[in-house]
This record gives sequence, C-alpha cells and structure tokens, in this order.
Amino acid sequence: MGWRRVTNDGVRNVRIPSVTVRRLPVYLRALSQLRQRGVEIVSSAELSRYTGYSSEQIRKDLAYFGAFGTRGVGYSAELLVQRIRCILGLDQPIAAAIVGAGHLGTALARYNIARDRDIRVTAIFDDDPAKIGLSIDGVRVYSAGEMQDVIRSRQIKLAIVAVPEGAAQRVVDELVAAGVRAVLNFAPVNLSVPDDVYVQDIDLSLELQSLAYYVAGAANSGRGGRHG
Amino acid sequence: MGWRRVTNDGVRNVRIPSVTVRRLPVYLRALSQLRQRGVEIVSSAELSRYTGYSSEQIRKDLAYFGAFGTRGVGYSAELLVQRIRCILGLDQPIAAAIVGAGHLGTALARYNIARDRDIRVTAIFDDDPAKIGLSIDGVRVYSAGEMQDVIRSRQIKLAIVAVPEGAAQRVVDELVAAGVRAVLNFAPVNLSVPDDVYVQDIDLSLELQSLAYYVAGAANSGRGGRHG
Repeated sequence: MGWRRVTNDGVRNVRIPSVTVRRLPVYLRALSQLRQRGVEIVSSAELSRYTGYSSEQIRKDLAYFGAFGTRGVGYSAELLVQRIRCILGLDQPIAAAIVGAGHLGTALARYNIARDRDIRVTAIFDDDPAKIGLSIDGVRVYSAGEMQDVIRSRQIKLAIVAVPEGAAQRVVDELVAAGVRAVLNFAPVNLSVPDDVYVQDIDLSLELQSLAYYVAGAANSGRGGRHG
Repeated sequence: MGWRRVTNDGVRNVRIPSVTVRRLPVYLRALSQLRQRGVEIVSSAELSRYTGYSSEQIRKDLAYFGAFGTRGVGYSAELLVQRIRCILGLDQPIAAAIVGAGHLGTALARYNIARDRDIRVTAIFDDDPAKIGLSIDGVRVYSAGEMQDVIRSRQIKLAIVAVPEGAAQRVVDELVAAGVRAVLNFAPVNLSVPDDVYVQDIDLSLELQSLAYYVAGAANSGRGGRHG
C-alpha cells in the first residue's frame, strides 16, 4: 500500500513505501536541528540519535531514493534536505483546506498558520451559519455549500477532516470529487476512498490505548521509549 | 526503544517492540468490527483486510505474545481481544489528564469523554484564571498550581500535553515528578524525559509533510493507500 513512483533526477524511478514516507519528515526535522548546530555532514548514527530510528533503518530508507552518502563519511545535510523536500513535493508551496471549524479544526488551523510555511491552510469549511464568514487568524470560514467550488478553483489537493464521525464520509466524498488526493482524517471512522487517494487517520483513542501499555509497565519492569 | 517485558499468563516473559504496541489497538478495532459482524474465528488474511497490515506482519505481531491461532483455522476473536486488552493494560480502567484547555485540549477532552470507556480523562489543567473551575462536559478544569497534587492523589499515570511549545517541557517535568509514565504530546518540541517514561508525539506538521508526497503523486502515477 501507499507506493508511488518517484522520478529521481529523471534518471530512474523508485517506489517508496508509505512507512518510509512517514519517516521522511522526521529526517527533515532532525536535519534542520543538526544544521542549526552547524553540522554539514551527517552520519546515519547521528540521524539515529536525533530520530530514534536505527542506523540500519535510516540507511535503508535513504537508499530508496539513491543515498548519496560517501561510505564511512556520511551524507551532506544540505543535499539530503533538498532531496527529501523534493521527494515529498515540498519544493513548491501546497495549499490545504480544513473541514470543520469546531474546537479541533480551529486548533489545527491556528497551529498550521503559526508554524507551516510549505503547506498552508487557505480555506476552512463549516456548516454552522454562525461561523461562516468568520476569519480564523486570517483564513476565512466558508460554508459547506461552497466547499467543492473553492477546492476546485484553488486546486487544493490536501484536506484535513475535523468533522463529527457521522459527517466524515460525505465530506470526503465531496472533497475527492473536487480533486483532493490526500486526507488527514481525525474522525474515528474508516473512510472509503478511490485507490488514487491517500488517507492518513489520526485516532486519539488508538493513541491512548497504545500508551496504556507503558502505564501498566510503570508498575513493574517499565522501559519507555520515543516514537517519532 | 520502547521495549517492555510482558508476563504472559505468568508462564513466560516476552518483550514487545513499540511499533507492534502501536498496532495492537488497530487489531482491537478490527476485531471489534469483525465480531459485530458475527465473526468468531479470524484469519490473519481477514485482519489484513481490516487493518491494511500484511498477513505476515500480523502473524509476527501476534506471535510476540504467543499466538493462539490454530494453523489453517485462525484465531479466536474473543480470546484475541482479551489477550490484547490484557497486554495493553486495558483490563482495568485508566485515568488520564489533559494539560491545556485551549481549543486543542478542549477538543481532545470532548472527544475522549464522548468515546473512550477504558481510558477516561478525569482532570484538565490550565493556567488561565478565566478557565479554572470550569467544567468541560463534566470534567473540571484545575489550575496549573493544583496539577501535581491532583495527579498524585488520583494516581494518574497518563497525560495528554496540549500546551504551547514554550511551556511543554516544564509541564512534562512536573507531570513526571507527580508520577505520570506515558505522555501523548501535541507540542512541536522534543521532550526530555527519564528512561522509564514513554512519550508519543503527534506533530501535525510532520503528518502534513508526509501527505504532501501523495498530493505530488496525484499529478502523475499516484497510488494511494491507508495507514492505520
């Protein structure tokens, strides 16, 4: 699942599994931190310390798009950042939309507007007449009825779904019809989408359930860890 | 990273890697859906259809705690649910706290209160005098100054951190001092914690960056997937 061809400098095509794609932004963040410290050449061991992934995993991931490290020396941090950004499509600005201007949608909008340069939320949608026309930190809340037109006219391909469970499938159907190809879904429901649409679910219940494991562990032989 | 011994019916000890722990709640959800459909014996192929993980991955995960499937027949859905819940520590109720009663904290509280039976948010903390004493769907907002006392007296071991970036480390230090052993962190910062505390980060920026890959893919040979 979740494979896509990537043209690597037009020379050859590689396919990157979705689990690797999820780690690429973590590498970007680590590389950014390393470069802020003046590091120009990084080893997989250093990336391992910053990300928590094993050196083996990192070398394997980077090999998917033709690792350009020198054996025994390391990777150029700058080139690695450029390559990962290019592979992720972050070398050009990306417009995103949020559906649902409740507490979660509002929190996500504010967070994004404050932090992300590459991927910018440019429209928010809600069906509450009291919210339509409002601005959340400069981004307008449109009515649900305007959703497909706005998504199409702005060629928005990425959407965050923060609506109640019962509305999520209908919303996603509309988003997909209007051209959205990637969805970050906060509604606790398995969304049906065509094969060429990618859905990433964030389910708070599942996150808490896996954390419970480490709580129980606190009572006996606990040993924590970090997950990127 | 993230290993913990598990006593399996007191017979033998197994250690489960954190990546497997993260998949266990996804299995629980799939098993719940299958049981609602009247399925009593499930195969790894069926679990694969419901979770998106490969049959091989599923068999490997379940083997960590001594899979009790019959070769060629499958797993008892009921027993599997019981075993996974026991391993996750969900066989007894777990109290959780949310720090930060802003939009995100409020959204998370409402979501949890409406949905989760096993892990219940029982206290919310904020430093805004206007919010202290309020109730969010029946759960009281306490002052930051009361945090350690409330966490200690209620033996809360699990906390959700939904405070601004600059406050997160200080909050987590207090939580850990008061006995918290597992943290779901929404602040975009690498938290330092002792070895026996587990932190799971949810970073919206990273999620969006990996989704960008599939948006770029929409232009050419896109092929989406689902990620549990």
